[in-house]
Amino acid sequence: MSDTGATLWFTGLSGAGKSTIARIVEAELGERGLRVEVLDGDVVRTNLSKGLGFSKEDRDTNIRRIAFVADLLSRNGVVAITAAISPYREIRDEARRTMGDRFVEVFVKASVEECARRDVKGLYEKAMRGEIKEFTGVSDPYEEPVDPEVVCDTESETPEESAAKVMAFLESRVGAAA
Amino acid sequence: MSDTGATLWFTGLSGAGKSTIARIVEAELGERGLRVEVLDGDVVRTNLSKGLGFSKEDRDTNIRRIAFVADLLSRNGVVAITAAISPYREIRDEARRTMGDRFVEVFVKASVEECARRDVKGLYEKAMRGEIKEFTGVSDPYEEPVDPEVVCDTESETPEESAAKVMAFLESRVGAAA
Repeated sequence: MSDTGATLWFTGLSGAGKSTIARIVEAELGERGLRVEVLDGDVVRTNLSKGLGFSKEDRDTNIRRIAFVADLLSRNGVVAITAAISPYREIRDEARRTMGDRFVEVFVKASVEECARRDVKGLYEKAMRGEIKEFTGVSDPYEEPVDPEVVCDTESETPEESAAKVMAFLESRVGAAA
Repeated sequence: MSDTGATLWFTGLSGAGKSTIARIVEAELGERGLRVEVLDGDVVRTNLSKGLGFSKEDRDTNIRRIAFVADLLSRNGVVAITAAISPYREIRDEARRTMGDRFVEVFVKASVEECARRDVKGLYEKAMRGEIKEFTGVSDPYEEPVDPEVVCDTESETPEESAAKVMAFLESRVGAAA
Protein backbone atom coordinates (compact mmCIF):
# COMPACT_ATOMS: atom_id res chain seq x y z
CA MET A 1 0.00 0.00 0.00
CA SER A 2 1.38 3.40 -0.95
CA ASP A 3 1.32 5.84 1.90
CA THR A 4 -0.48 8.91 0.69
CA GLY A 5 -2.07 9.82 3.99
CA ALA A 6 -1.72 13.36 5.28
CA THR A 7 -3.65 15.90 7.25
CA LEU A 8 -3.90 19.36 5.72
CA TRP A 9 -4.69 21.41 8.78
CA PHE A 10 -6.16 24.70 7.58
CA THR A 11 -6.31 27.39 10.23
CA GLY A 12 -7.40 30.99 10.00
CA LEU A 13 -10.14 33.46 10.78
CA SER A 14 -13.74 33.01 9.78
CA GLY A 15 -13.97 34.29 6.21
CA ALA A 16 -10.25 33.98 5.52
CA GLY A 17 -10.97 31.42 2.80
CA LYS A 18 -10.27 28.05 4.47
CA SER A 19 -13.25 26.15 3.07
CA THR A 20 -12.93 27.69 -0.39
CA ILE A 21 -9.30 26.65 -0.74
CA ALA A 22 -10.02 23.29 0.89
CA ARG A 23 -12.67 22.49 -1.71
CA ILE A 24 -10.31 23.30 -4.59
CA VAL A 25 -7.56 21.14 -3.09
CA GLU A 26 -10.11 18.37 -2.50
CA ALA A 27 -11.07 18.42 -6.19
CA GLU A 28 -7.44 18.43 -7.37
CA LEU A 29 -6.50 15.50 -5.13
CA GLY A 30 -9.62 13.62 -6.20
CA GLU A 31 -8.66 14.08 -9.86
CA ARG A 32 -5.32 12.49 -9.09
CA GLY A 33 -7.07 9.45 -7.66
CA LEU A 34 -6.26 10.15 -4.03
CA ARG A 35 -8.73 9.54 -1.25
CA VAL A 36 -9.69 12.80 0.41
CA GLU A 37 -12.13 13.99 3.06
CA VAL A 38 -12.87 17.54 4.12
CA LEU A 39 -13.74 18.02 7.78
CA ASP A 40 -14.88 21.59 7.86
CA GLY A 41 -16.00 23.42 10.95
CA ASP A 42 -19.72 23.17 10.28
CA VAL A 43 -19.68 19.45 9.40
CA VAL A 44 -17.77 18.65 12.56
CA ARG A 45 -19.89 20.81 14.82
CA THR A 46 -22.97 18.99 13.52
CA ASN A 47 -21.66 15.44 13.61
CA LEU A 48 -19.11 15.30 16.39
CA SER A 49 -19.54 18.30 18.62
CA LYS A 50 -23.18 19.22 18.87
CA GLY A 51 -23.75 20.89 22.21
CA LEU A 52 -20.25 22.33 22.48
CA GLY A 53 -19.94 26.10 22.64
CA PHE A 54 -17.09 28.48 21.96
CA SER A 55 -15.34 28.77 25.31
CA LYS A 56 -11.65 27.89 25.19
CA GLU A 57 -12.41 24.52 26.77
CA ASP A 58 -15.16 23.66 24.28
CA ARG A 59 -13.10 24.84 21.33
CA ASP A 60 -10.22 22.69 22.50
CA THR A 61 -12.49 19.66 22.82
CA ASN A 62 -13.85 20.27 19.33
CA ILE A 63 -10.37 20.54 17.85
CA ARG A 64 -9.18 17.41 19.65
CA ARG A 65 -12.09 15.47 18.11
CA ILE A 66 -11.22 16.76 14.66
CA ALA A 67 -7.61 15.73 15.25
CA PHE A 68 -8.70 12.26 16.40
CA VAL A 69 -10.67 11.71 13.20
CA ALA A 70 -8.02 13.29 10.94
CA ASP A 71 -5.44 10.98 12.51
CA LEU A 72 -7.63 7.90 11.89
CA LEU A 73 -8.07 8.90 8.25
CA SER A 74 -4.54 10.04 7.47
CA ARG A 75 -2.90 6.98 8.98
CA ASN A 76 -5.04 4.94 6.59
CA GLY A 77 -3.90 6.61 3.41
CA VAL A 78 -6.55 9.33 3.23
CA VAL A 79 -5.79 13.02 2.83
CA ALA A 80 -7.84 14.61 5.60
CA ILE A 81 -8.43 18.31 5.17
CA THR A 82 -9.57 20.11 8.29
CA ALA A 83 -10.97 23.58 7.90
CA ALA A 84 -11.96 24.79 11.34
CA ILE A 85 -10.70 28.11 12.74
CA SER A 86 -8.62 26.29 15.40
CA PRO A 87 -7.47 29.51 17.04
CA TYR A 88 -5.23 28.08 19.75
CA ARG A 89 -1.62 27.22 18.99
CA GLU A 90 -1.28 24.71 21.81
CA ILE A 91 -3.99 22.41 20.49
CA ARG A 92 -2.77 22.65 16.90
CA ASP A 93 0.68 21.65 18.17
CA GLU A 94 -0.88 18.74 20.03
CA ALA A 95 -2.39 17.54 16.75
CA ARG A 96 1.01 17.95 15.09
CA ARG A 97 2.66 15.82 17.77
CA THR A 98 0.01 13.11 17.30
CA MET A 99 0.37 12.97 13.53
CA GLY A 100 4.06 13.77 13.10
CA ASP A 101 5.15 14.04 9.48
CA ARG A 102 1.62 13.55 8.27
CA PHE A 103 0.63 16.95 9.68
CA VAL A 104 0.73 19.91 7.31
CA GLU A 105 -0.30 23.24 8.80
CA VAL A 106 -1.79 25.62 6.26
CA PHE A 107 -2.19 29.15 7.55
CA VAL A 108 -4.98 30.86 5.62
CA LYS A 109 -4.08 34.44 6.29
CA ALA A 110 -6.24 37.53 6.04
CA SER A 111 -6.62 40.42 8.44
CA VAL A 112 -9.65 40.82 10.65
CA GLU A 113 -10.45 44.02 8.75
CA GLU A 114 -10.45 42.19 5.43
CA CYS A 115 -12.51 39.27 6.77
CA ALA A 116 -14.98 41.71 8.28
CA ARG A 117 -15.19 43.55 4.96
CA ARG A 118 -15.96 40.26 3.13
CA ASP A 119 -18.29 39.09 5.91
CA VAL A 120 -19.65 36.25 3.78
CA LYS A 121 -21.91 34.87 6.52
CA GLY A 122 -22.77 38.23 8.13
CA LEU A 123 -21.11 37.07 11.34
CA TYR A 124 -18.61 39.91 11.79
CA GLU A 125 -21.35 42.51 11.75
CA LYS A 126 -23.20 40.61 14.46
CA ALA A 127 -20.01 40.08 16.45
CA MET A 128 -19.12 43.75 16.27
CA ARG A 129 -22.60 44.64 17.49
CA GLY A 130 -22.01 42.27 20.40
CA GLU A 131 -24.68 39.83 19.24
CA ILE A 132 -22.16 36.96 19.03
CA LYS A 133 -19.93 36.41 22.02
CA GLU A 134 -16.50 34.79 21.80
CA PHE A 135 -16.06 35.54 18.11
CA THR A 136 -12.51 34.82 16.96
CA GLY A 137 -10.66 37.96 15.90
CA VAL A 138 -13.26 40.28 17.42
CA SER A 139 -13.91 39.22 20.99
CA ASP A 140 -11.81 36.05 21.17
CA PRO A 141 -8.12 35.49 20.39
CA TYR A 142 -6.57 34.02 17.28
CA GLU A 143 -3.02 32.77 17.71
CA GLU A 144 -1.19 32.77 14.38
CA PRO A 145 0.94 29.74 13.49
CA VAL A 146 4.64 30.25 14.20
CA ASP A 147 6.10 28.07 11.49
CA PRO A 148 3.35 26.69 9.23
CA GLU A 149 4.23 24.47 6.28
CA VAL A 150 2.18 26.65 3.91
CA VAL A 151 0.95 30.23 4.13
CA CYS A 152 -1.92 31.27 1.88
CA ASP A 153 -2.27 35.03 1.90
CA THR A 154 -5.78 35.45 0.64
CA GLU A 155 -5.52 39.23 0.49
CA SER A 156 -3.01 38.94 -2.33
CA GLU A 157 -3.69 35.50 -3.85
CA THR A 158 -6.70 34.02 -5.61
CA PRO A 159 -8.14 30.81 -4.11
CA GLU A 160 -6.67 28.92 -7.08
CA GLU A 161 -3.21 30.34 -6.39
CA SER A 162 -3.49 29.40 -2.73
CA ALA A 163 -4.62 25.87 -3.60
CA ALA A 164 -1.67 25.54 -5.99
CA LYS A 165 0.70 26.35 -3.13
CA VAL A 166 -0.81 23.58 -1.03
CA MET A 167 -0.55 21.13 -3.93
CA ALA A 168 3.07 22.14 -4.56
CA PHE A 169 3.91 21.48 -0.94
CA LEU A 170 2.31 18.03 -1.08
CA GLU A 171 4.16 17.22 -4.28
CA SER A 172 7.43 18.18 -2.63
CA ARG A 173 6.82 15.42 -0.09
CA VAL A 174 7.91 12.02 -1.26
CA GLY A 175 4.89 9.91 -2.09
CA ALA A 176 2.40 12.39 -0.73
CA ALA A 177 0.76 13.14 -4.06
CA ALA A 178 1.95 10.42 -6.39
CA MET B 1 -8.26 1.45 -5.87
CA SER B 2 -9.86 -1.74 -4.71
CA ASP B 3 -12.86 -1.19 -2.54
CA THR B 4 -12.29 -3.10 0.62
CA GLY B 5 -14.10 -0.71 2.92
CA ALA B 6 -16.70 -2.05 5.32
CA THR B 7 -18.06 -1.40 8.75
CA LEU B 8 -18.28 -4.39 11.05
CA TRP B 9 -20.83 -3.18 13.53
CA PHE B 10 -20.53 -5.34 16.64
CA THR B 11 -23.44 -5.05 19.03
CA GLY B 12 -24.16 -6.89 22.26
CA LEU B 13 -24.18 -6.67 26.02
CA SER B 14 -21.21 -5.61 28.10
CA GLY B 15 -19.11 -8.72 28.56
CA ALA B 16 -20.61 -10.56 25.58
CA GLY B 17 -17.21 -10.61 23.88
CA LYS B 18 -17.38 -7.77 21.34
CA SER B 19 -13.90 -6.36 21.91
CA THR B 20 -12.28 -9.79 22.17
CA ILE B 21 -13.68 -10.92 18.83
CA ALA B 22 -13.01 -7.51 17.29
CA ARG B 23 -9.32 -7.74 18.18
CA ILE B 24 -8.98 -11.18 16.61
CA VAL B 25 -10.71 -10.00 13.42
CA GLU B 26 -8.51 -6.89 13.42
CA ALA B 27 -5.37 -9.06 13.53
CA GLU B 28 -6.62 -11.39 10.77
CA LEU B 29 -7.51 -8.51 8.47
CA GLY B 30 -4.18 -6.83 9.20
CA GLU B 31 -2.35 -10.01 8.23
CA ARG B 32 -4.13 -9.92 4.89
CA GLY B 33 -2.86 -6.40 4.30
CA LEU B 34 -6.17 -4.66 4.79
CA ARG B 35 -6.46 -1.37 6.57
CA VAL B 36 -8.46 -1.75 9.76
CA GLU B 37 -9.43 0.40 12.74
CA VAL B 38 -11.25 -0.68 15.89
CA LEU B 39 -13.52 1.92 17.44
CA ASP B 40 -14.41 0.33 20.71
CA GLY B 41 -16.70 1.82 23.29
CA ASP B 42 -13.99 3.07 25.62
CA VAL B 43 -11.86 4.63 22.88
CA VAL B 44 -14.83 6.50 21.51
CA ARG B 45 -16.12 7.67 24.87
CA THR B 46 -12.67 9.13 25.58
CA ASN B 47 -12.01 10.74 22.22
CA LEU B 48 -15.38 11.68 20.79
CA SER B 49 -17.94 11.62 23.52
CA LYS B 50 -16.41 12.77 26.77
CA GLY B 51 -19.14 14.30 28.88
CA LEU B 52 -21.94 12.20 27.46
CA GLY B 53 -23.81 9.94 29.85
CA PHE B 54 -25.96 6.87 29.37
CA SER B 55 -29.43 8.30 28.88
CA LYS B 56 -31.09 7.20 25.63
CA GLU B 57 -30.37 10.60 24.13
CA ASP B 58 -26.69 10.55 25.06
CA ARG B 59 -26.28 6.95 23.92
CA ASP B 60 -27.87 7.83 20.58
CA THR B 61 -25.51 10.79 20.18
CA ASN B 62 -22.54 8.58 20.99
CA ILE B 63 -23.61 5.96 18.45
CA ARG B 64 -24.25 8.57 15.76
CA ARG B 65 -20.70 9.85 16.22
CA ILE B 66 -19.30 6.35 15.91
CA ALA B 67 -21.35 5.87 12.75
CA PHE B 68 -20.09 9.17 11.33
CA VAL B 69 -16.47 8.12 11.82
CA ALA B 70 -17.06 4.53 10.66
CA ASP B 71 -18.67 5.90 7.50
CA LEU B 72 -15.70 8.21 6.82
CA LEU B 73 -13.30 5.30 7.23
CA SER B 74 -15.24 2.62 5.39
CA ARG B 75 -15.96 4.77 2.36
CA ASN B 76 -12.20 5.23 2.07
CA GLY B 77 -11.31 1.57 1.91
CA VAL B 78 -10.79 0.93 5.62
CA VAL B 79 -12.50 -1.84 7.55
CA ALA B 80 -13.93 -0.01 10.55
CA ILE B 81 -14.85 -2.27 13.44
CA THR B 82 -17.16 -0.72 16.01
CA ALA B 83 -17.53 -2.46 19.33
CA ALA B 84 -19.90 -0.39 21.43
CA ILE B 85 -22.98 -1.91 23.06
CA SER B 86 -25.30 0.13 20.77
CA PRO B 87 -28.45 -1.12 22.46
CA TYR B 88 -31.06 0.67 20.33
CA ARG B 89 -32.22 -0.83 17.07
CA GLU B 90 -33.36 2.45 15.57
CA ILE B 91 -29.91 4.03 15.69
CA ARG B 92 -28.19 0.92 14.38
CA ASP B 93 -30.63 0.94 11.48
CA GLU B 94 -29.84 4.59 10.88
CA ALA B 95 -26.15 3.67 10.59
CA ARG B 96 -27.11 0.89 8.19
CA ARG B 97 -29.03 3.29 5.98
CA THR B 98 -26.06 5.69 5.90
CA MET B 99 -23.56 3.01 4.94
CA GLY B 100 -25.69 0.72 2.80
CA ASP B 101 -23.88 -2.40 1.62
CA ARG B 102 -20.79 -1.49 3.59
CA PHE B 103 -22.64 -2.11 6.87
CA VAL B 104 -22.27 -5.54 8.43
CA GLU B 105 -24.14 -6.06 11.70
CA VAL B 106 -22.48 -8.62 13.98
CA PHE B 107 -24.64 -9.66 16.91
CA VAL B 108 -22.41 -10.82 19.73
CA LYS B 109 -24.89 -12.87 21.67
CA ALA B 110 -24.77 -13.96 25.28
CA SER B 111 -27.46 -13.88 27.94
CA VAL B 112 -27.43 -11.32 30.72
CA GLU B 113 -26.98 -14.19 33.16
CA GLU B 114 -23.87 -15.41 31.36
CA CYS B 115 -22.40 -11.89 31.03
CA ALA B 116 -23.08 -11.28 34.73
CA ARG B 117 -21.37 -14.56 35.56
CA ARG B 118 -18.27 -13.58 33.55
CA ASP B 119 -18.40 -9.97 34.84
CA VAL B 120 -14.94 -9.20 33.50
CA LYS B 121 -15.00 -5.57 34.61
CA GLY B 122 -17.04 -6.08 37.79
CA LEU B 123 -19.78 -3.88 36.37
CA TYR B 124 -22.70 -6.29 36.63
CA GLU B 125 -22.20 -6.71 40.35
CA LYS B 126 -22.26 -2.95 40.79
CA ALA B 127 -25.27 -2.60 38.50
CA MET B 128 -27.18 -5.28 40.37
CA ARG B 129 -26.41 -3.51 43.65
CA GLY B 130 -27.83 -0.35 42.08
CA GLU B 131 -24.47 1.42 42.08
CA ILE B 132 -24.56 1.93 38.32
CA LYS B 133 -27.72 3.40 36.85
CA GLU B 134 -28.84 2.80 33.27
CA PHE B 135 -26.81 -0.37 32.85
CA THR B 136 -27.74 -2.23 29.67
CA GLY B 137 -29.38 -5.58 30.35
CA VAL B 138 -29.92 -4.83 34.03
CA SER B 139 -31.63 -1.47 34.34
CA ASP B 140 -31.62 -0.33 30.73
CA PRO B 141 -32.95 -2.06 27.60
CA TYR B 142 -31.03 -4.01 24.97
CA GLU B 143 -32.85 -4.42 21.67
CA GLU B 144 -31.54 -7.48 19.81
CA PRO B 145 -30.87 -7.20 16.08
CA VAL B 146 -33.70 -8.54 13.93
CA ASP B 147 -31.70 -9.73 10.94
CA PRO B 148 -27.97 -9.33 11.57
CA GLU B 149 -25.46 -10.42 8.92
CA VAL B 150 -23.54 -12.49 11.47
CA VAL B 151 -24.48 -13.96 14.86
CA CYS B 152 -21.68 -14.93 17.23
CA ASP B 153 -23.08 -17.00 20.07
CA THR B 154 -20.34 -16.65 22.63
CA GLU B 155 -22.00 -19.10 25.03
CA SER B 156 -21.31 -21.93 22.59
CA GLU B 157 -18.41 -20.65 20.46
CA THR B 158 -14.83 -19.73 21.27
CA PRO B 159 -13.72 -16.20 20.33
CA GLU B 160 -11.67 -17.74 17.50
CA GLU B 161 -14.73 -19.53 16.14
CA SER B 162 -16.75 -16.33 16.31
CA ALA B 163 -14.01 -14.39 14.53
CA ALA B 164 -13.88 -17.06 11.83
CA LYS B 165 -17.61 -16.55 11.16
CA VAL B 166 -17.05 -12.83 10.67
CA MET B 167 -14.13 -13.50 8.34
CA ALA B 168 -16.18 -16.02 6.37
CA PHE B 169 -18.93 -13.49 5.90
CA LEU B 170 -16.48 -10.88 4.66
CA GLU B 171 -14.95 -13.36 2.26
CA SER B 172 -18.38 -14.16 0.87
CA ARG B 173 -18.67 -10.53 -0.17
CA VAL B 174 -16.99 -9.77 -3.47
CA GLY B 175 -13.82 -7.81 -2.91
CA ALA B 176 -14.39 -7.35 0.78
CA ALA B 177 -11.41 -9.42 1.87
CA ALA B 178 -9.30 -9.84 -1.24
